[in-house]
Amino acid sequence: MGYPDTTDAFAVTDIKKWSEFTRKDLPLKKFEEDDVDIAVDACGVCASDVHTITGGWREDIPLPLCVGHEIIGKVIKVGSKVKNLKVGDRAGVGAQVGADLTCNNCKADQENYCPNKVDTYGDPHPDGTIAQGGYSSHVRVHNYFAFKIPDVLETSIAAPMLCAGLTTYSPLKRLGCGKGKKVGIIGLGGLGHFGVLWANALGAETYVLSHTPGKEDNALKLGAKEFICTNDKDWHKPYAFTFDILLNCADATDKFNLPDYFGTLKPNGFFHMVGLPDKPLPSLNAQDFLPSGCYIGASNIGNRPEMEEMLELASKQKITSWVQTIDISEKGCKEAVERVYNNDNVRFRFTLVNYDSIFGKRA
Amino acid sequence: MGYPDTTDAFAVTDIKKWSEFTRKDLPLKKFEEDDVDIAVDACGVCASDVHTITGGWREDIPLPLCVGHEIIGKVIKVGSKVKNLKVGDRAGVGAQVGADLTCNNCKADQENYCPNKVDTYGDPHPDGTIAQGGYSSHVRVHNYFAFKIPDVLETSIAAPMLCAGLTTYSPLKRLGCGKGKKVGIIGLGGLGHFGVLWANALGAETYVLSHTPGKEDNALKLGAKEFICTNDKDWHKPYAFTFDILLNCADATDKFNLPDYFGTLKPNGFFHMVGLPDKPLPSLNAQDFLPSGCYIGASNIGNRPEMEEMLELASKQKITSWVQTIDISEKGCKEAVERVYNNDNVRFRFTLVNYDSIFGKRA
Repeated sequence: MGYPDTTDAFAVTDIKKWSEFTRKDLPLKKFEEDDVDIAVDACGVCASDVHTITGGWREDIPLPLCVGHEIIGKVIKVGSKVKNLKVGDRAGVGAQVGADLTCNNCKADQENYCPNKVDTYGDPHPDGTIAQGGYSSHVRVHNYFAFKIPDVLETSIAAPMLCAGLTTYSPLKRLGCGKGKKVGIIGLGGLGHFGVLWANALGAETYVLSHTPGKEDNALKLGAKEFICTNDKDWHKPYAFTFDILLNCADATDKFNLPDYFGTLKPNGFFHMVGLPDKPLPSLNAQDFLPSGCYIGASNIGNRPEMEEMLELASKQKITSWVQTIDISEKGCKEAVERVYNNDNVRFRFTLVNYDSIFGKRA
Repeated sequence: MGYPDTTDAFAVTDIKKWSEFTRKDLPLKKFEEDDVDIAVDACGVCASDVHTITGGWREDIPLPLCVGHEIIGKVIKVGSKVKNLKVGDRAGVGAQVGADLTCNNCKADQENYCPNKVDTYGDPHPDGTIAQGGYSSHVRVHNYFAFKIPDVLETSIAAPMLCAGLTTYSPLKRLGCGKGKKVGIIGLGGLGHFGVLWANALGAETYVLSHTPGKEDNALKLGAKEFICTNDKDWHKPYAFTFDILLNCADATDKFNLPDYFGTLKPNGFFHMVGLPDKPLPSLNAQDFLPSGCYIGASNIGNRPEMEEMLELASKQKITSWVQTIDISEKGCKEAVERVYNNDNVRFRFTLVNYDSIFGKRA
């Protein structure tokens, strides 16, 4: 077998051996006239990949599984109903590859909350095929979830925008991030560094909150006005009622003293989570929200208009994500996920590249 | 002693005997030129009074303490700087009697989040005097926290609007309750019945969610379109992605399965708490917010413009809170707080009345 029936994938076969990748042909969904086939050239390595293959979020993942949802490649086939892309285009795919596109949520540009959404890997397509991600030679997706990449954005730089970028851009935009607003980005990793880039690009005064003092330099280089070390005693006191939005990009929220963070929010401000811990949040009382009348919540990626807007913004303002590239292979995948798991000097995103050397040209 | 130095108060002296009220003279704050003295004629009995005197929210309350923060009475003295009220006016006081009125929060009409706010009972005034509530002959408050009551609103009907009314009106208003919105009011008690009245008056399609099937009749009489019994198995399933706002007026949130409620919210909807349980919220995962990208939060009463707007709305639309009156006395206070504590047939608010028979005319 092989394309167009299968994709040549680096897959995990056992969550206990989550960093051992095996090269395997995995089935692609049945091609439909709305679909686009993409020969993958690069894929960002998202913390979600690691939470998934380690069983951190849930243990019953379908195996073998090929992860990766920050995909960029070349369009090599389009269905008859596809209008937004053509063969030869450079296209990106993020963390969602399907939705019914007919429900109230979809009609309200909330397709990322469609009850029939299909995640890029691990979810079944309507035909029953398990979706497989971008650590592989090919992906097949509905064209609504494939995006033309602006020419000025280099492939390895653009890849992580497809999930980490959108996941941070969407809530900032929906919560009104812009001129005159003060925004705190908590945690400076793959998500957080995008948080700083977008908040800045949208015109907000941007702060980085991190328990790692060593991240101050990079925070300022990325454009933060100030770095707040949350390991300092009483760090929150000088910032009472300061932030309109705290975008929590860390996934160690279970270790936070949340009322300290809530106290730094302006009245009716938002503590918005995009980093998702494996563990429950710390215990909360309704009263913890009272001093600032604040909210805590989370979001799931973003919608198509936001993805297009974000790529446009990045392209116009020449926003460059900070990535390190790793050549794709069993060894490359292993190194990438292990270093993300161990938080081992990831500044701030790995992109798997050099797909042609493994999979050939595929045009 | 007596007025103008003290107020003649029904006070609790021991949280272990929280329903035994003792009549006592308690000091009033020093009179200042911004202050208004009010001879109390009626006071609503709020669940907060009960949470406070039982030590449910915190055990170190100042004693003796006179509770009550839904106060209506006659203005009998005004300071030289007071412009909004004059002697003889009928005025109301809610759950806040002080703030610095100079901080950023106050300047942004967020005085209910002022770090120097003074609650109507139990908080120290700047002069050190402990504020005492409305189960008493007199209150003395800064005029910013005293409100002229529109003539059409009868005293015992208007009293509970000062706290329960505002506490529900403010978040509904801030979250955009109005025409075209679907709002669920959880819990049909003192707060919840106002939730239904306001949501309706603001033009929203209003639902009542309650675990007590017997409340359906009253829910519909108050103006709800539909009653949802949350004791029914899978009650939430038909309501997936239905509500823009869930206003949680119940204080048994610790017993809720919150993800069921979250699932009934439209994307980015709000689960907003105004009922405050003594116990922590159920354990939450960041992931619980993902299916609808929703928020949970709470608020503390409301601001002055909202109070005025609400009284105006009630007056224009002839909105009548459902109250039962109880004559003030040691016995009356005891009956009121015990029945609120036991949730014993309170439909939907008690107002203590007939103050003249105990305290005399006081004009």
